[in-house]
Amino acid sequence: MSHEDERLARAALSRAFEPGEPRVLGVVSRFGAEELLARLRDGEDLQGFWAAGAARLATVDPRADLDHVARLGGRFVIPGDPEWPAQLDDLASVPPLNERTGVPLGLWVRGPLRLDTVADSVAIVGSRAATTYGDELAGDLAVGVARAGRPVVSGAAFGIDHAAHRGALVGGAPTVAVLACGVDRAYPRTNAPLLEHLYEHGAVVAETPLGGAPQRIRFLARNRVIAALTRGTVVVEAAIRSGALNTAHWAQRLNRVVMGVPGPVTSPASGGVHQLLRTGGAELVTSAEEVLELVGAAGEHLLDDPRGPVRARDAVPLRHQQVLDAVPLATGAPAASIARVAGLPAAEVSTALAHLETAGLVELDDEGWRLAASAHR
Amino acid sequence: MSHEDERLARAALSRAFEPGEPRVLGVVSRFGAEELLARLRDGEDLQGFWAAGAARLATVDPRADLDHVARLGGRFVIPGDPEWPAQLDDLASVPPLNERTGVPLGLWVRGPLRLDTVADSVAIVGSRAATTYGDELAGDLAVGVARAGRPVVSGAAFGIDHAAHRGALVGGAPTVAVLACGVDRAYPRTNAPLLEHLYEHGAVVAETPLGGAPQRIRFLARNRVIAALTRGTVVVEAAIRSGALNTAHWAQRLNRVVMGVPGPVTSPASGGVHQLLRTGGAELVTSAEEVLELVGAAGEHLLDDPRGPVRARDAVPLRHQQVLDAVPLATGAPAASIARVAGLPAAEVSTALAHLETAGLVELDDEGWRLAASAHR
Repeated sequence: MSHEDERLARAALSRAFEPGEPRVLGVVSRFGAEELLARLRDGEDLQGFWAAGAARLATVDPRADLDHVARLGGRFVIPGDPEWPAQLDDLASVPPLNERTGVPLGLWVRGPLRLDTVADSVAIVGSRAATTYGDELAGDLAVGVARAGRPVVSGAAFGIDHAAHRGALVGGAPTVAVLACGVDRAYPRTNAPLLEHLYEHGAVVAETPLGGAPQRIRFLARNRVIAALTRGTVVVEAAIRSGALNTAHWAQRLNRVVMGVPGPVTSPASGGVHQLLRTGGAELVTSAEEVLELVGAAGEHLLDDPRGPVRARDAVPLRHQQVLDAVPLATGAPAASIARVAGLPAAEVSTALAHLETAGLVELDDEGWRLAASAHR
Repeated sequence: MSHEDERLARAALSRAFEPGEPRVLGVVSRFGAEELLARLRDGEDLQGFWAAGAARLATVDPRADLDHVARLGGRFVIPGDPEWPAQLDDLASVPPLNERTGVPLGLWVRGPLRLDTVADSVAIVGSRAATTYGDELAGDLAVGVARAGRPVVSGAAFGIDHAAHRGALVGGAPTVAVLACGVDRAYPRTNAPLLEHLYEHGAVVAETPLGGAPQRIRFLARNRVIAALTRGTVVVEAAIRSGALNTAHWAQRLNRVVMGVPGPVTSPASGGVHQLLRTGGAELVTSAEEVLELVGAAGEHLLDDPRGPVRARDAVPLRHQQVLDAVPLATGAPAASIARVAGLPAAEVSTALAHLETAGLVELDDEGWRLAASAHR
């Protein structure tokens, strides 16, 4: 039995069963698609779930499906292909969520991007009902991730997904849209221009076969593919029950890096992200640099701690800082009083005050020395 | 030697040395204030730090200071007093930060609120340069904390501190302002009306003696008192180098609950809070309820997980949800196709679709059944 026979068998099963069906994927991972196909075609004592699948198999034409995707400039990528993204195999050991799990039978793909080149990719996902804040942030994060040479994966939905794909294009990295429907469909329809662009310059991927409609069950299965395909998932905005949280939970279960971008606590669009951050389910990130640090290989993209603005007092020699710390903020005090607070000899304090005055950090008022505006906390 | 002699000794030392001076507080905690005072007064071989302190002691009049604070309606509360807030004793075992640490010699207090009643209090601190977002949140959190009967402690500065004190007053709980200057001074001056109110209805507290000016070194010492006095510290807005982070670090070192309220990552005013949250130094909180849950005694204020809005599909019987999950979102599909996706018998699916249509969750178009708007994800 050839690898192409295996491809035909997987294409047939992909028509007969729903994406992420653990019973099917379990048998396939143990015995192979052709063996399952043979058992279903020959089986006389099948019942229930398996009998329904066998009945559907009688009507499928996998060769026609492969021809169809080829006419669209696409392909059906399966395990064992050089292009197969090996990171998806991590799904084999993850227990079901929402009754979906398992390594996909294959991925229907359009676009020139090879899926074996996206192992370093980052998923940026979030609410369809995004705010301007979320849209802009998702775009900025995607630009930064892309500029670092990492592909961006998302779900081609309105809102955050759309901003993520566009940001990746601006940043000059490939971007992958993983759909819940067939790769010959545009859902939502207003995203057709984005998808057209990805057919030419990126990749549009689906586990659902051609013609398949977007259904809730397929979104839940699709989310596990986004999580498994990528090194880490960033949730930018997600309300308490957003589907983006489902992707984050898959990423957790796959031991991927899970990241959340906080927002105003008054914004319901950030409520689900804050919940994820509160429960320790995600790392808080505020910039592409922080995302890259977390998904990077050890030593790559290590950030310095943020230091804040350099302040005038930073330039003061340490022996004068002790004096500066003892100068009143509001009303001036005599040098003797400052010497007392600083615990230093009066002569040393007088010298320091002269230096600090030259540096514009202290000034004299009627009552003595006080901090100048530039030296305030 | 009476307790009142100890008070006089501590008042004298409070004039002669800076707040949070670990050398002084270390000796006092081992031998008592009177013993240190005696050694300084009798000492012939004192040098440097101790000699300077002894020289200053010769000029202080602690009885006059106690009379002065009494004339202001206040008092000097020291360890051993019934009013002493025992939680401050936790400072005895914390190593210095910014060269400050230790249990205060005493607290100069104005206002009717007894300090031994604030063990359950919450500190709400943050930037003086707060945004409207931060001000409103600090106020809301303080109202919620106060309504739960917990005092609110802050630093009487502009911005977040001011909003926290005001929120506590609105919420009907006592509020405590811990100052870096003497309790006879108003800094900043525009906060005088707030302080006047607290003299009558709350507490204004300082480790710095009467007349003492606000100085950086005293803010750093003051912050440890805010952290130690309270069960937990909430940072609402703080830029990367805000003094509020110093209070949070003290709270960490004291094993208090440290909390941070996130904001837009585009807001520099939230930068320090996000840094605190990223490094695991604080718990993310978004509401007074979450603050109360974290600072509460076990079992007190336990929150349900946020559940988000109840959706129409939640009311659907489980056996119909399986059908609903298989209904396309965009273009309709025939019942037979939906039955296939759902993996259920056609008759059962037809019954379910009829129920779902009555419930307004699915609708027919030219091509079959699709989700109605109310059932969308």
